[in-house]
Amino acid sequence: MKLLYPTSLKLDVSSIEGFSVELYPYDVSQPFPDEHVDAEILVTWTNTADNLKDGAKRLTKIRWIQSLAAGPNDVLNAGFDASKIAITTGSGLHDHTVAEHTLGLLLVAARRFYEMRDYQLQSKWPGHLGGPQPDRPQGKFTTLRDANVLVWGFGNIAKRLTPSLIALGAKVKGVARHAGVRDGIEVVGEDQLPALLPKTDALVMILPGDESTRNALSAERIAQLPAHAWIVNVGRGMSVDEAALEAALNEDRLGGAALDVFETEPLPESSGLWKAKNVVVSPHAAGGRPQGAETLIAENLRRFLAGQSLKNVIKSKL
Amino acid sequence: MKLLYPTSLKLDVSSIEGFSVELYPYDVSQPFPDEHVDAEILVTWTNTADNLKDGAKRLTKIRWIQSLAAGPNDVLNAGFDASKIAITTGSGLHDHTVAEHTLGLLLVAARRFYEMRDYQLQSKWPGHLGGPQPDRPQGKFTTLRDANVLVWGFGNIAKRLTPSLIALGAKVKGVARHAGVRDGIEVVGEDQLPALLPKTDALVMILPGDESTRNALSAERIAQLPAHAWIVNVGRGMSVDEAALEAALNEDRLGGAALDVFETEPLPESSGLWKAKNVVVSPHAAGGRPQGAETLIAENLRRFLAGQSLKNVIKSKL
Repeated sequence: MKLLYPTSLKLDVSSIEGFSVELYPYDVSQPFPDEHVDAEILVTWTNTADNLKDGAKRLTKIRWIQSLAAGPNDVLNAGFDASKIAITTGSGLHDHTVAEHTLGLLLVAARRFYEMRDYQLQSKWPGHLGGPQPDRPQGKFTTLRDANVLVWGFGNIAKRLTPSLIALGAKVKGVARHAGVRDGIEVVGEDQLPALLPKTDALVMILPGDESTRNALSAERIAQLPAHAWIVNVGRGMSVDEAALEAALNEDRLGGAALDVFETEPLPESSGLWKAKNVVVSPHAAGGRPQGAETLIAENLRRFLAGQSLKNVIKSKL
Repeated sequence: MKLLYPTSLKLDVSSIEGFSVELYPYDVSQPFPDEHVDAEILVTWTNTADNLKDGAKRLTKIRWIQSLAAGPNDVLNAGFDASKIAITTGSGLHDHTVAEHTLGLLLVAARRFYEMRDYQLQSKWPGHLGGPQPDRPQGKFTTLRDANVLVWGFGNIAKRLTPSLIALGAKVKGVARHAGVRDGIEVVGEDQLPALLPKTDALVMILPGDESTRNALSAERIAQLPAHAWIVNVGRGMSVDEAALEAALNEDRLGGAALDVFETEPLPESSGLWKAKNVVVSPHAAGGRPQGAETLIAENLRRFLAGQSLKNVIKSKL
């Protein structure tokens, strides 16, 4: 049995050795080599669309694809069929790095590091941001302490992020399709948004990208947030109505938005978001570096060879 | 007995009522009113130098000054004599807010939010900072995970900061005059700096400002840091040799510096630090908002009236 692993990241290949499987590297930006089209297992990471399309056509023996990305969209879009082969994602490999970036964006917002930078570039001291300050003033997002942080999309990234927010004194609630208490955090259904949004100081969006989440943060929901609230989006750009967001920012109906994801990436130079009021643009930088990929591959390889169910397997829509 | 409290911050005065003490507000930017020069207790916060000098001359019955600042320098400089009256500081009231700001600066550095901002201002997508990235590459400070963070000046702020760093995966050590293990963190003496600095990814400086700390981070010690190391200073500007720092930054002998404090504040427009490579200028914004001041004042007031030793009392140098 043959497994192809990508050279697009530094894998410690020795950590997936020891199975009755031959391991071969491959280039994710090229067609698959003729001698490897008999592979039964494929690991993917930042493959080009052409490479994946080529694979969907020519890897006729493929039985399992392990993506290292958080979601399976690129693999599915290429034509691989989850009803015929096993497709597993890298869900969990990005939790730490996305959580860290999200915390950073929240602090950039609360502590206004972006505004300080604008002054620095002019060699000007932003005196209004330093020295004696009111402590936790009403109607401003100036610190995580006592701030109401609402995390919409409460999965593993949220679970990783939450302890850091709690340690800094934030009051955290979650929103997800399924309500319940997770890791001690109250998670409510989306039907509770009209009650929660008006009390939110910072809304963290970690929604996946599919048609069910398009414009989840609509003009109507933006209007339910207080005028000082910040939005931090590290999920997918399509989950926010960008035009409504831009308008709300420029009309001071929102405190600001720190965005790592956009409807179109790279964000076009013509986008009004670049210069909208209190926007922080981060270039889809939260994730992008899977951590612990070898452990996941080895564990799933063991399960695959043992005929057991795989971790992070996606369900066929059929 | 009369206590004067400042109107320069919003104090919940009801939280210091209940003692046999009369409470009067006063303006920290004006001479003390004639009818209050018999006060025995004074609470200070962001008093002007003139106000404090006036007080040192005219408040002839004063027995105790409770400053809400982290240090007593302004009170001592005005001429109040710690060998004759009790002087207590607001040490502890700023731990949370300084720790939060410090964490923010570390993340701005690691995740390069300052550089993203520079691109944003030109409506340009900083593609090199987003998308697939190497995970924890050697010789770069890109994340707190597995980063060696050295905290020089390991008091209450450091103790508040450390759990957040640990939660993000950093390896934290402390440096202080007295070695030992504090809150589970190994704290070594300054004699260990030559061994530790070369292994440091981020050096957090939280030293107090007095002559014993002047240029503590000297050219020689800067040279002991690796070329990718960041310096975050939230203590006092005088503890860093700014000229040596600027030279090291511009010659790529340091990864960067995120500075909240400076030898001269506001940082003069002529300073080379504004535009030195990879410098983040924050306008002494880490603290400035005492939290829990009422609790400290009430507790010390109780102790004072009971004839007990006060919290945060500074020792006379006599």
